Amino acid sequence: MTIITLTTDFGTADGYVGAMKGVILGIAPAAQLVDLSHEIAAQDVRGAGYVLGRAAVYFPAGTIHLAVVDPGVGSRRRPLLITTPLASYVGPDNGLFTFALAEAGAAAFELDHPEFWLPNISRTFHGRDIFAPVAAHVARGVAPHALGSPISNAVRLPLVAPQWHSDGHLAGHVVRVDHFGNLITDIPGGWVGEGRWCAEIAGRRITQFGTTYADIGAGELLILVSSADTFEIAARGGNAAALLGVGVGEAVDFRSTL
Amino acid sequence: MTIITLTTDFGTADGYVGAMKGVILGIAPAAQLVDLSHEIAAQDVRGAGYVLGRAAVYFPAGTIHLAVVDPGVGSRRRPLLITTPLASYVGPDNGLFTFALAEAGAAAFELDHPEFWLPNISRTFHGRDIFAPVAAHVARGVAPHALGSPISNAVRLPLVAPQWHSDGHLAGHVVRVDHFGNLITDIPGGWVGEGRWCAEIAGRRITQFGTTYADIGAGELLILVSSADTFEIAARGGNAAALLGVGVGEAVDFRSTL
Amino acid sequence: MTIITLTTDFGTADGYVGAMKGVILGIAPAAQLVDLSHEIAAQDVRGAGYVLGRAAVYFPAGTIHLAVVDPGVGSRRRPLLITTPLASYVGPDNGLFTFALAEAGAAAFELDHPEFWLPNISRTFHGRDIFAPVAAHVARGVAPHALGSPISNAVRLPLVAPQWHSDGHLAGHVVRVDHFGNLITDIPGGWVGEGRWCAEIAGRRITQFGTTYADIGAGELLILVSSADTFEIAARGGNAAALLGVGVGEAVDFRSTL
Repeated sequence: MTIITLTTDFGTADGYVGAMKGVILGIAPAAQLVDLSHEIAAQDVRGAGYVLGRAAVYFPAGTIHLAVVDPGVGSRRRPLLITTPLASYVGPDNGLFTFALAEAGAAAFELDHPEFWLPNISRTFHGRDIFAPVAAHVARGVAPHALGSPISNAVRLPLVAPQWHSDGHLAGHVVRVDHFGNLITDIPGGWVGEGRWCAEIAGRRITQFGTTYADIGAGELLILVSSADTFEIAARGGNAAALLGVGVGEAVDFRSTL
Repeated sequence: MTIITLTTDFGTADGYVGAMKGVILGIAPAAQLVDLSHEIAAQDVRGAGYVLGRAAVYFPAGTIHLAVVDPGVGSRRRPLLITTPLASYVGPDNGLFTFALAEAGAAAFELDHPEFWLPNISRTFHGRDIFAPVAAHVARGVAPHALGSPISNAVRLPLVAPQWHSDGHLAGHVVRVDHFGNLITDIPGGWVGEGRWCAEIAGRRITQFGTTYADIGAGELLILVSSADTFEIAARGGNAAALLGVGVGEAVDFRSTL
Repeated sequence: MTIITLTTDFGTADGYVGAMKGVILGIAPAAQLVDLSHEIAAQDVRGAGYVLGRAAVYFPAGTIHLAVVDPGVGSRRRPLLITTPLASYVGPDNGLFTFALAEAGAAAFELDHPEFWLPNISRTFHGRDIFAPVAAHVARGVAPHALGSPISNAVRLPLVAPQWHSDGHLAGHVVRVDHFGNLITDIPGGWVGEGRWCAEIAGRRITQFGTTYADIGAGELLILVSSADTFEIAARGGNAAALLGVGVGEAVDFRSTL
């Protein structure tokens, strides 16, 4: 019972995701379907990659990840299949799968065998017409080479990594604001150790490090290691993003207070 | 592994849909459940029919579609099962299934065998107490005649079809505003061919036809053939419904510009 | 094919629920996953218990209910498994499962066998790292005593029950505002019988009792027996919570008008 996950910016009101699932189950009736998110911000390719990349590591080997955030649908952007030793990825070639292409053993294929697609291809919904049937055929065991042609130039988005500066401060960014308003940064939890540090964001200095949300008073800001193993800034019982008025991309600096 | 889809206006916060799924799986443990939408606007029977009708064609033969948008729950409106050569439909007799009744070979049954319902029937939640168990019994292979009595007067909503006027213009309507704010019309993509045309809506004239969202500048309006094979009006990287201030029912006229 | 339901306050945008499902399916590939609600208000332990308790009764025997609304994650609050004759419950020991602990034959276990958890336990996401794998092991048939140690002091929230007062009026509360704005009370439908009664809430007196939403004019308020078998206050085609400006906890008094 192969798992196929779905990640889109389609929302769940219109039945678009449902139509994709109908197509999949018509080809691979035993597939186990799992929604990751359909609330990716419209056309937020980078956000989709973050959400999918974080969740994918918790799925068993052999899982197929179908992801459609596709501002270029109907244009010349290529449809893509990526295989890694542990998973497959199907969706548009627009950088969404940058994290997967970086894995050892990753291979990319331009989908160019329309006999595995729906008979009629719309201009605006390749998720239903191309990507859903291809994901289902992967689940049935069709080989990547039958579905597409190997390519070496799949689109990769530039990665913005946190950096140590010469004055000893560490500069990172907010990479995700979650449902609770927690600000997830790209700074690995292990990079700042036993010493005393503070975080600066949006002109505010946050000095409280903690291990749990229960460590602070209501509404206070706290730095802790997130479930993604990077630092996050949280407000107990509140919304740190709203309190600070910041979003994805905001600079976060860690400085020693010694 | 029979598929049962679910379409409601219940939202997903209250566990109402979950209770329906519990009832189904208690009767038909191997059913494959697929949510189409639970964000139909409250009591929007016509909107539910549109979303279900558009998605249903992508499901394999034998699929059972359970749909509950039911302003008349507890009153004398009848509970209904419809069978077509390719699918079954279960829900209230209020016009929601007008599209299915129009199919060749459709048959309608008033559900009148309470032995296939839950033992206690609430006044306000027939989705859980009548429709979910009936859908599950259909999945188990119970014959329609065992579940209900044939009727020939199931409720059909009047269909509003686009029309050619004597001055040569084509008058249609917006039938759906989707998650992206795209305005889906009822005008089939094939009705306006090679000549030059423009669309008029809400006092605006839109002259750009295209094949993909990438054909126009950000925020500009575009007419293209939607994934439902009817014309839609979209705003690149924006929300056409908000830009134009219009919704479902808005008139759209196509005129030749030759 | 054991059913595992999921109830959280995580929302569905971030992929957090998806990661939990990946963990479950890696351990129990044949589990049937059913979402009850991921829109519990942030940290609303009592609301989660209400939604789960109402839906759980509609699931077949042997269902496992995984629920994570967990303001104390990472603190000393205990991770919990509860078994009853009909179901199992997995989640934090914070009162969420008060309704289950009240059932005859309920037993509680503090989860203290990390060999059944993920290898690395984050401080902020025990839903993924502890509760999801434990639920999956329960689905595979691992015995409760292998997963935890029996305890007798699992946290129970005080139940607020409706009460008859000496002047003959019945005092209850709103316990849930649903998606439609209906106000669900804790007053059982059978407690007020054949006589004439009115309900008082927020300074308003409501005299119309009915059996269906169709019994009143648009926008009028109505008292009827909800699908939870308790009284609810509804506004036909409208939102009673918004009309009255009230929410969970609001007092509702029933008085005889004889």
